[in-house]
Amino acid sequence: MLELRLVQGSLLKKVLEAIKDLVNDANFDCSATGFSLQAMDSSHVALVALLLRSEGFEHYRCDRNISMGINLGNMSKMLKCAGNDDIITIKADDGSDTVTFMFESPTQDKIADFEMKLMDIDSEHLGIPEAEYHAIVRMPSSEFSRICRDLSSIGDTVVISVTKEGVKFSTRGDIGTANIVCRQNTTVDKPEEATIIEMNEPVSLTFALRYLNSFTKASPLSNTVTISLSSELPVVVEYKIAEMGYIRFYLAPKIEEDEDETKPQM
Amino acid sequence: MLELRLVQGSLLKKVLEAIKDLVNDANFDCSATGFSLQAMDSSHVALVALLLRSEGFEHYRCDRNISMGINLGNMSKMLKCAGNDDIITIKADDGSDTVTFMFESPTQDKIADFEMKLMDIDSEHLGIPEAEYHAIVRMPSSEFSRICRDLSSIGDTVVISVTKEGVKFSTRGDIGTANIVCRQNTTVDKPEEATIIEMNEPVSLTFALRYLNSFTKASPLSNTVTISLSSELPVVVEYKIAEMGYIRFYLAPKIEEDEDETKPQM
Amino acid sequence: MLELRLVQGSLLKKVLEAIKDLVNDANFDCSATGFSLQAMDSSHVALVALLLRSEGFEHYRCDRNISMGINLGNMSKMLKCAGNDDIITIKADDGSDTVTFMFESPTQDKIADFEMKLMDIDSEHLGIPEAEYHAIVRMPSSEFSRICRDLSSIGDTVVISVTKEGVKFSTRGDIGTANIVCRQNTTVDKPEEATIIEMNEPVSLTFALRYLNSFTKASPLSNTVTISLSSELPVVVEYKIAEMGYIRFYLAPKIEEDEDETKPQM
Repeated sequence: MLELRLVQGSLLKKVLEAIKDLVNDANFDCSATGFSLQAMDSSHVALVALLLRSEGFEHYRCDRNISMGINLGNMSKMLKCAGNDDIITIKADDGSDTVTFMFESPTQDKIADFEMKLMDIDSEHLGIPEAEYHAIVRMPSSEFSRICRDLSSIGDTVVISVTKEGVKFSTRGDIGTANIVCRQNTTVDKPEEATIIEMNEPVSLTFALRYLNSFTKASPLSNTVTISLSSELPVVVEYKIAEMGYIRFYLAPKIEEDEDETKPQM
Repeated sequence: MLELRLVQGSLLKKVLEAIKDLVNDANFDCSATGFSLQAMDSSHVALVALLLRSEGFEHYRCDRNISMGINLGNMSKMLKCAGNDDIITIKADDGSDTVTFMFESPTQDKIADFEMKLMDIDSEHLGIPEAEYHAIVRMPSSEFSRICRDLSSIGDTVVISVTKEGVKFSTRGDIGTANIVCRQNTTVDKPEEATIIEMNEPVSLTFALRYLNSFTKASPLSNTVTISLSSELPVVVEYKIAEMGYIRFYLAPKIEEDEDETKPQM
Repeated sequence: MLELRLVQGSLLKKVLEAIKDLVNDANFDCSATGFSLQAMDSSHVALVALLLRSEGFEHYRCDRNISMGINLGNMSKMLKCAGNDDIITIKADDGSDTVTFMFESPTQDKIADFEMKLMDIDSEHLGIPEAEYHAIVRMPSSEFSRICRDLSSIGDTVVISVTKEGVKFSTRGDIGTANIVCRQNTTVDKPEEATIIEMNEPVSLTFALRYLNSFTKASPLSNTVTISLSSELPVVVEYKIAEMGYIRFYLAPKIEEDEDETKPQM
């Protein structure tokens, strides 16, 4: 039997909004340690990994490991019926082919049960090793989101270049070129407004803006985003989920065969 | 001659927004007692009845009973040109084939006259007898609106079941089932937030969500909605219009030939 | 070399939003006295004239007169990437076929450079003589915008008639007629809420609402609009740009061959 009670139900609503456009169907894996998901996007280019640790739930009962195959679009439709202040409980009986989402209003005057059919989904769990990155940038998630959206109006790809002084986002398109530089800045009023760069060596990598824009739908989950870059590894775009876990997005850099075409000068 | 001056002109704007999508053309009936309308929706399934009593107008002159055939879409276009704080006056000369809507801004600096052609519309006025209902539910109009909208994302029909403890809204669709229970609750801070159930006997009836969703467009007129249910009668969904009258929507229950298909278990 | 630094960068954003739907491509002319533009709309019916005087810029360097041919849709895409609080600098090297827009965030933590290709655009600069107008109406820009939008839901053209008492906007369409009168009103709490009429002789002219609605996109630039009318001249719709200059729109009146058709009675 599975019964997970999440007082801050809006977190689960935001998680679904963050991933439902990227991934159609996925297995949610539930074990004693937490509620997690790992899935490729529908074009098999990006990977999303979600973890909500058991300690973050008010009540967490998971008698045996189970994997629930879910259509994320349908799950999102159901979670949209939860109020932002509702407590959400996820329930499944052993061997059942359904999962139930229960929404309780803060006053307990309104209780909703949404029952959804589960699916069989083939998936292989990729081991993602801990790695050393050439550069790690932490910045306000709203700023990163704004930059990706702005650059999309000019070009299709972005070159992210990190130096000690700052991080530069560049693109090029039919109408011209754009370069946006965010300087390292730790002397801010609120810690979440800081832009902090940890760099072992300079790095400059090219990514498809389409995917980055999709990742930024996780911005409501966290005020800050962490971007980990290495020339031999996929970039990791991570949004922490308050004291519970994270959503991480992985995306391989584009290889620059036609460097002159796609890479703005720096 | 007809001259009706409504200081709170926004009420008339809201009335039109509430009914214009349900009814295309209708007769507004004006008599010494008030300004009213009764019309079937364009698919002849639902009935809407509006009453604005003469006492609610600052000035009310209606020399003889008249019936004005009006295209509600066009009337809505004109009323959208009135400011929310404007005073609205409805004027018609005897025997004229036009009606004039006058909008006065609160400061009297801006005066608008919109003149609209009237239509000939055949209509029969149905007598709606006062009836005894098995159950009457009063609840916040925003809550009822939210429930109808939420359930529409899952299924096409809703079963409304009333017991002493509460009212349950249930639906079923391709992606699963949903049950939402609102408990009787009279100990609230604001009277309009109460959910109050008067029940003579338990009742459980099925309705098309499409129509209920249309009715909820009247929510801006009132903080509360009253739903009167009886197994032999159409449901009445009523929104009171502050000290002036009401909009009532009538809808026959669906007969459950295929009960297993459409009725979620309770 | 050209370098124009505008601390209130949002002004330039608003200017582009005001004209980009009316004009596709235009030359921005830069001289020692200011940054200006004069262009016909794409259907060659309306004329727009923009002036931003050099004194309004924090830094203004223009070594020699230059004319930059710009696609306004592309320029608008780039300016949308500037924050509302950003400082915008326009830069061009002598003989270059590009212009650069630099956006600096107020904290200087984020610096963006957008480089756009210039175009060759044929244009003739029309001399617009100072003229005497029969009537000049100054009114809140939001009110004028609202009236043009409201009347567009009824008809295609508007008759603007000015008398000493006020200004009347009239239209006629399939569903009826509309007249909106704004009275002269100088006793208001805030000067920008006044409606002020200077009249030498009464005037009544007809205009296409489509163009007036397009002009009102300049409303965010100024709380008031000035409408100058004369029976022998195009109307001038002017929005002042705080201490820097103006946007003026010119539109010829429609000639009333079919006066009965298009002109509502007054």
